[in-house]
Amino acid sequence: MMNFSRRKFLQRTAVTASAMAVIPEIIAAALPAEKRQAVSIPKNGVILFQGDSITDAGREKTKELPNNGASFGTGYAFVAATSLLERFAGQQLSVYNRGISGNKVFQLADRWQKDCLDLKPDVLSILIGINDYWHMRNGNYDGTVEIYEADYRKLLQQTKAALPNVQLVICQPFALPGTTAVDESWVAPVKAYQEVAEKMSREFNATWVPFQRVFDEAIRRAPAKYWAADGVHPSMAGCQLMAAAWLKAVL
Amino acid sequence: MMNFSRRKFLQRTAVTASAMAVIPEIIAAALPAEKRQAVSIPKNGVILFQGDSITDAGREKTKELPNNGASFGTGYAFVAATSLLERFAGQQLSVYNRGISGNKVFQLADRWQKDCLDLKPDVLSILIGINDYWHMRNGNYDGTVEIYEADYRKLLQQTKAALPNVQLVICQPFALPGTTAVDESWVAPVKAYQEVAEKMSREFNATWVPFQRVFDEAIRRAPAKYWAADGVHPSMAGCQLMAAAWLKAVL
Repeated sequence: MMNFSRRKFLQRTAVTASAMAVIPEIIAAALPAEKRQAVSIPKNGVILFQGDSITDAGREKTKELPNNGASFGTGYAFVAATSLLERFAGQQLSVYNRGISGNKVFQLADRWQKDCLDLKPDVLSILIGINDYWHMRNGNYDGTVEIYEADYRKLLQQTKAALPNVQLVICQPFALPGTTAVDESWVAPVKAYQEVAEKMSREFNATWVPFQRVFDEAIRRAPAKYWAADGVHPSMAGCQLMAAAWLKAVL
Repeated sequence: MMNFSRRKFLQRTAVTASAMAVIPEIIAAALPAEKRQAVSIPKNGVILFQGDSITDAGREKTKELPNNGASFGTGYAFVAATSLLERFAGQQLSVYNRGISGNKVFQLADRWQKDCLDLKPDVLSILIGINDYWHMRNGNYDGTVEIYEADYRKLLQQTKAALPNVQLVICQPFALPGTTAVDESWVAPVKAYQEVAEKMSREFNATWVPFQRVFDEAIRRAPAKYWAADGVHPSMAGCQLMAAAWLKAVL
C-alpha cells in the first residue's frame, strides 16, 4: 500500500513534468493553475465548441461530423479537439464544432436547438462577443453591451434548463491592437464585453478561459500581428496558443 | 476551506491523471529520447512538410500560403506546424505543406523543383511510401520495393545536391491492420518499405520519425480504427499523435 502510494506519487510527478514540458511558457505565465476550474470528461461524452468565425475556422457545413478534421476547420477547436481525442483515447468521445462566421449571441440563439441542445453536450464551450462589438462599431448591428449581457444570460438559462448537467466553458472574447483591424480605441469598449462574459462564467459556474490575458502575455514574445493579423482572427500560432490555454483551463 | 482545498486537490489529481495518462506514455514508450536526432530551427527558417494524402489532409492548393490554416489542411502537419509557430514565435518561420493525395515517390520527384527546391527549405520533412505499396497491391501501379528505394535515394540525392545544408526529417510510412482497408497481409510487405525509408534516413543523416512504432504503442490504448479508420489515413486523434511524435523526434 505504501509502495502503491509512492508509485502513484512518482507517476503523478512524472506526468506533471511531461505536462509542464508541453505547456507553453506563455500559458503557464497567463493561467495560474489554482485559478482553473476543471471539467470532467465522461466516457461516451459529447463535447461541443460553439462560437463565431474564430471557432468556425473554415469548417465544412454539410456533413458536420464529430471527430472529423474537415468538419472542424483549421482553428483552435481542431487543435484542442485532436488533443482531447488523443488524451482520452478509448473513452468514445464525440467532439463537435458548430461555430459559424459572423455570429453574435442572438444568432447562436436562433440556431441553438439544432446546433447545441439536440447534440446534448456534456461539455459546452462558447466563444462569442467580438462581433457583438465589432458589427455595432462598423454600423452593421444596433446591439449594445447591455443587449449582449441580456442575450447571453438568456441563452445560458435556456441551455441550463434543457441540459441541467452540462458543464459550461465560457471563453473570453479578445482583440489585439496594433493589427490591421484593431487599434487602441477597441480596448476599453471590448473590456466591457469581456467583463460581461466573465460575469456569465461566474453566474453559471462555468470554466473561464481568459484568452485576452493569454494574448497580452504572448505579445511580449512576438508582435500582435503574429498572433492575429487583423487582431481578431488568430494565426496558426494563435490557434495553438488558444488550444493550449483552453486545455489548461478545462483539464 | 480545508474541505474546499482538499476537494480541489483530489479533483485536480484525478483530472491530471486521466488527462495526461495516455499520450506521454505512448510517445515515451515509442520514442526513446536517446534515439532522436534534434533539428535546429534557424531564424527566418523555412520548414516544409512533403508527402501524400496523410500530409495533404485536404489543404487548399491555389494559394498554398505558408503559416496558413487553409493551406495546411486538417492533418498532422497542421498540428505540428501550429506548435512550431507558437514555440518559435518571433523567429519569422515560414512553414509550408505541399503534400498531395495519392503521391508515390516518383510523383514527388515530378514536382520537386516547384514544390520543394524552389522553396529552399532549411528543414524538409517527408512522409512517403504507403501508396508505393498500396497502389501496387491494388493493381494501379507496377512499382516494387526496389523501385521505391531507387526513386527515394535519387530524390534525396537531388535534394542534397541542390540544398547541401537542408536538415532532413524522414517519416516512417505506416499501416494499421484491423481496419477497413488494412489487414494482417499488409504487415510483412509494408515492413520492407519501412526498412527502405529507415535505410534512407541513415544514408542521408536524417531525423527518423517511427510512426509505426507510435501507432503500435497506441493500439494498446484504443483500437486501430480509433487512430485510423481505414488503417492508412489518421483520425484527429491519430493526427495529434503523429504531431506529438514528429515534434518529439525533431525538437
